[in-house]
Formats: sequence, C-alpha cells, structure tokens
Amino acid sequence: MSGPNYEQRRGRLLRRFREVGIDSLLVSSVSSVRYLTGFTGDSSWLFVSPGLTVILSDTRYETQLAAECPDVRAEIRDAGSTVVELAARTMRSAGVRQTGFEAEHLTWATHRALQVAVESASGGGLLPMTGLVERQREVKDRFELEQIREAIRIAERGFGVVRSSLRATQTETDIRYLLESSMRDFGGHGPAFEPIIGVGPTAALPHAHAGQRRVSEHPVLLIDWGATNAAGYRSDLTRVLITGKPTKQIERVYQTVLGAQRAAIAAIRPGARCADVDRIARGMIADAGFEKFFGHGLGHGFGLDIHESLRMSPLSNQEFEPGMVVTVEPGVYLPGKFGVRIEDDVLVTSDGCEVLTKVPREFEEAFVGVLA
Amino acid sequence: MSGPNYEQRRGRLLRRFREVGIDSLLVSSVSSVRYLTGFTGDSSWLFVSPGLTVILSDTRYETQLAAECPDVRAEIRDAGSTVVELAARTMRSAGVRQTGFEAEHLTWATHRALQVAVESASGGGLLPMTGLVERQREVKDRFELEQIREAIRIAERGFGVVRSSLRATQTETDIRYLLESSMRDFGGHGPAFEPIIGVGPTAALPHAHAGQRRVSEHPVLLIDWGATNAAGYRSDLTRVLITGKPTKQIERVYQTVLGAQRAAIAAIRPGARCADVDRIARGMIADAGFEKFFGHGLGHGFGLDIHESLRMSPLSNQEFEPGMVVTVEPGVYLPGKFGVRIEDDVLVTSDGCEVLTKVPREFEEAFVGVLA
Repeated sequence: MSGPNYEQRRGRLLRRFREVGIDSLLVSSVSSVRYLTGFTGDSSWLFVSPGLTVILSDTRYETQLAAECPDVRAEIRDAGSTVVELAARTMRSAGVRQTGFEAEHLTWATHRALQVAVESASGGGLLPMTGLVERQREVKDRFELEQIREAIRIAERGFGVVRSSLRATQTETDIRYLLESSMRDFGGHGPAFEPIIGVGPTAALPHAHAGQRRVSEHPVLLIDWGATNAAGYRSDLTRVLITGKPTKQIERVYQTVLGAQRAAIAAIRPGARCADVDRIARGMIADAGFEKFFGHGLGHGFGLDIHESLRMSPLSNQEFEPGMVVTVEPGVYLPGKFGVRIEDDVLVTSDGCEVLTKVPREFEEAFVGVLA
Repeated sequence: MSGPNYEQRRGRLLRRFREVGIDSLLVSSVSSVRYLTGFTGDSSWLFVSPGLTVILSDTRYETQLAAECPDVRAEIRDAGSTVVELAARTMRSAGVRQTGFEAEHLTWATHRALQVAVESASGGGLLPMTGLVERQREVKDRFELEQIREAIRIAERGFGVVRSSLRATQTETDIRYLLESSMRDFGGHGPAFEPIIGVGPTAALPHAHAGQRRVSEHPVLLIDWGATNAAGYRSDLTRVLITGKPTKQIERVYQTVLGAQRAAIAAIRPGARCADVDRIARGMIADAGFEKFFGHGLGHGFGLDIHESLRMSPLSNQEFEPGMVVTVEPGVYLPGKFGVRIEDDVLVTSDGCEVLTKVPREFEEAFVGVLA
C-alpha cells in the first residue's frame, strides 16, 4: 500500500486557481487540511499559493505538525494572537492579491474578522469559494480507495459478530456497544458515526439514538453503522434484520426499498445525473404508495468525512465521475411502526459501478433466529 | 431532579431582543437549539419571536420532534426544499423586520443564500448576532448544574477503575478503551470527547491521540478525559499519574503547574476578569522558566458542548458571574520529553468558586505502582 501523495493533491488544487480567479486559498475545513497535508489536528488553517504553502496553527500542535507533515512549513501562534491575524500576515507577506476562502466552512463572523484584518494589513481581496477542495475530494485516489475498502471490511466483520450473537434480550444499546467494540477488535479506530440501532418504532426514526428497546419487542431490527480506519477513512452501511415473524407489510416495505436500491445502483455510471438516480428510487417508492415515508436524499459521498459534498437528492445538480464513492440508501419509515433502510457503498467505475459492500441484503437472508 | 424549563430559557432570550435590535432570531447551532427546546437531533433551526416559535426541520426528525418537544411547533420540509427556503418563508409569514442570525455558526455561504431568499420573499433584514444564546448558556441553571455534577461523577468513577487497574504493559489505547467502557458502565452516554492518553513524549502533545506507547516506557502518564451524561452534559478533567521513578524535572514541572492552577482557582470569583486569572497562572509558569511551554488558554466553559464561549486566555474580555462553570487547566509541555496538565472543573459561586472535581491532585497522590 503506497502512502498518500499530498504534494500531488496540492498540485491538482493549484492548477484550478486560475479558472476560479484566485492566486491563493485559505483552507479552514479540518478534513480538507488533512487531505492536503496529512495533519490530523484541528484549529489549523492551510494557506496555499504557487510560491508558499504554510499551515497556520498554534503551540498545541507544534510537535505534531513536525511529525505528521515535515514537508509543509508551519507558522505557530501563541495564546495571545488569533489564526485570523496570522492568516492576514501570511497573505501580506506572500504578496497575494486574490485569496479564496471556503465559504461553506468559514463562519460569517470569522470572515468578517478576516476581512477587517486583511484591510488593515492593506492586503488583497477575499473571494468566496464553494466546494473547491471538496470537489477534488469527491473523486478518490488509489490510496483513498484502499482505505475505504478497509473501513468497509472492518465494519462488515463487526456486523458479523453482532449478527452471529444476536439474542432476544439484547437492547439497542447493548448491540451498539458490542458493534463498536467488535469493529475496534478488527482494527477500527472508532465508529464512523454513532451507530443507529433501532427496534420496530425506533427504526422508523431515520436518525434515532440506540435506546433501551429489546430485540424481542419487534421483528424489525435496523442497524446503520460504519467504521473509521487508521488513516481516518470511513464506511457507512445499513441493514435490517428480521428477528421474528414478519408481517406482510414488513415484507412489502423491505422488498420496495430493496427494489428501489437495486434500480438506483443499476443506473450509477459516469455521466449519470445524481438527481436522476435519486428520482429512479424515489419513483419506485412512490409507485408502491410510500412516497411521503421517504423524506431524505438517496445517498451521499463519504471518505474522511461521513457526509461529503456529493449528494443524490432531488436538489442535486451533480454528475457521476469514475472514482467517486457514494452511499445508496433508500428508506421507508412508518411512524410508530417500523422503518426499513438498506444502504450500500458504491464506487463509480469507468463504465458503471462496483458495490463495495458485501453483506447479504435479500429479504430471505435478513432472517436471524434469536433465542428467547 | 426537576426537568429543564425550556419556555423559561426562551423567555430570557426574548427579553434581550430589544437591546440588541432584533424582533426575531434564527438559532442554527445544534446545541443551542437543544438548550432552547430539548430537541436532540441536528440539521434543524429554531426561529424565535415574541409571537411565533418554530423548529425548521425535515422528515427524518418529524416523529422525534413530536416526542422530544411537543410544546414547540415544527415545520417539516421534504428532500425537495432547503432549510434556508423554509426560514425565509417563516420570516415572511411571521411578518418580522429584523431577524438575528448566529454569526459564529452560520457559514458565509448559508448566510448569503438566506439573504437572497429573504430578499426574494421581500422580507425584512438579517442582523449578525455574536454569542447571544451562548452568553445565556455560560451561566448554568439548576438543572444544568445537576447534569454537570453527574457527568463529573461518571468521569471520576471511570478514572478510578483505570487507576486501580493500571499495569506496565498497557498501551495508551488500552487505557482509552478501558476508560470509555468504565464510564459507560457508570451510566455515561459516551465520552465527552476522545480521551487523550499520553505516555512521556505523547503527553508533551497537548492534543495527542492515544497510541501504542506502553505505561512502562516513561514515568509520566497524562489522562485528559470526561463523560457525557444522559442529558448531553459533559465533564472535562486531566490528571498526570506517576508510574515509575520521576526525575527532578518531572517533579518541578508538576509542582509548577499545580501551583499555577491553585493560584488561578483562588482568584476565580464574580467580577474577576478571565484574562487576569489567565495571567496569574501564566505568570507563575513564566517565573519558573516555562513560559514558552504553555501555549494554550487557561480554561474554557463547557456544558452541552465541550468548548463553550467562556474563555480564560490573554485575549478574553469576559468577567466571571455566579453560575458559570469553567475548566482550569494550565500545562507545561517539553517536546520529546513529557508534559503535565492538571485540569479541574470549577463553578463560580456568589462569593468565590467551588471545585466540582474531587480526584486527588497532589504530587504525592499521583504515584501509582504498576506491576512489571
């Protein structure tokens, strides 16, 4: 496994500067700083320009920066100055005229403070950039795909332990902790997000917290989980397990969701529009009469972050490109009863896509006998 | 234990509107929405005005909102519209003229989109607000203090298990996981943040991740940890344990840090300036010759968030008030060697302060025999 080439990533970014009208960029998103440098801390900005690349950080991170990104210059402030002041000074000393900032990360207040500092330093202008680094991160490089595959393997092994040891008396919280510790045993560095474990009515809440419902309370058990690997990359899956005798409605909802997911995945290829793929799944769910029970988008990009800028929803104006990785996760949620979501991780290839996740998803394969 | 009074909290907020020149407020910070309503989800904004209080959310949270805050009206959007559009519509229908937004939470891009949506709805104006809800949250009410005390108790019990079972062969990561599961056993809902466990040189990195160093490698073991309780409130402590024969330098650094912390705590009372308290600790560390090895602020408020708006640093312009809760955490970090930080949680009382955390912190009490 070869390591990430940060200089190459920064080079790709720099080559886009002219087209968007900037000669320098302040990167303030924690995961984008990590993507471009390897630095795993926070509270630090990256200034990128053709002549100067520098991380603006503070004394807490001085030693860590030297260890994690020895090739990048670091400017360290003490507790008596702010990153905004440091950024303005850096812009002035670099002699840049048009500095982009990350409009979707910088808060209104920090932008205002930066503007004031830049003006008092008689510096250049600030230009809002939307998704400049994020767009680049949507297409994963070889190193990143290896990491994501590993994060998926860790998640799948953890799920295997949970599934094989399922008991009627377990609570949602019991399952959550077992899943977290199992993923850790397989090398995970923590869950990719707080796992959602829902029995029956809890599964009807798309973003529920695991609570005290027991497996025996309802035949539907929804598990939405993922792992973070050592390099910080994530995975994201959802499965529904049938732990008792399912009603006709449960089967019908399950088959509807699975059919919608299958059709959506079949439509993912380079050039396909994300909104169109969303519409395919949404339309099938509507045809089955569940339109108002599927309120979220069909899927999202992920990698260093669990939710990245690629989105499949009615509002998306993006198109798929080879190397993109996206979740496909239609769902139907019947309030007070149960919910079904089936989620897999899909890599866009040169002529279609590859489903990276391998956990069985047929209705017949969802049955798990649990002892009383 | 009486529950939180959300209506009272919103009432206090509303009474500040006139003085800051607004007739309504959009709250977009997740923890401030929770503070004002009890809603534990995310991606949702709260619109507050004298005549109308409404949560702007999406279908994922419809059922959860009804359960968690039945007294607050909810407007639910589907996947085909944005929270920004919903906010602009709400402002228009409420007929408000001056709506505050949270300038330290809203991104530049979201503010811009909101501005466009409000203008096209021929609505009122948007005014940047800094710390409006946060200032209110700095002073904890009775319910919140009960929660914080519980989060401290959980953290302290977890630490007790770690300390009593310390072995020379344990790695930083082993200790982290034991600490996390112990806090969970005592009722914690996860750690308050990723625990920092550092042996020797790792302890010299103020924000290190727990890695593979073993306890036996160095006599200094730094543990910075906290718990989150069921209601979402946090605690934050740091202790250094001496697991072998300490050098004179270790003892000198430890006593310097402890002396600085003690002097700072003695200065905390209503009316004391946060920057002055910071200066007391910073001055004592400088007098001992370690000035450049203490680069972070002296402490921060916490509660629903682990870092809240109250800050003790050279840059702070705040003053203490009764009911504020703050960490006091001076440190000295010698790169490549070791670091010492001692952190306690302090409540400002009517005439001084109360140290809420009870873990022993004398140098003599830091010694732990570990078997080989």
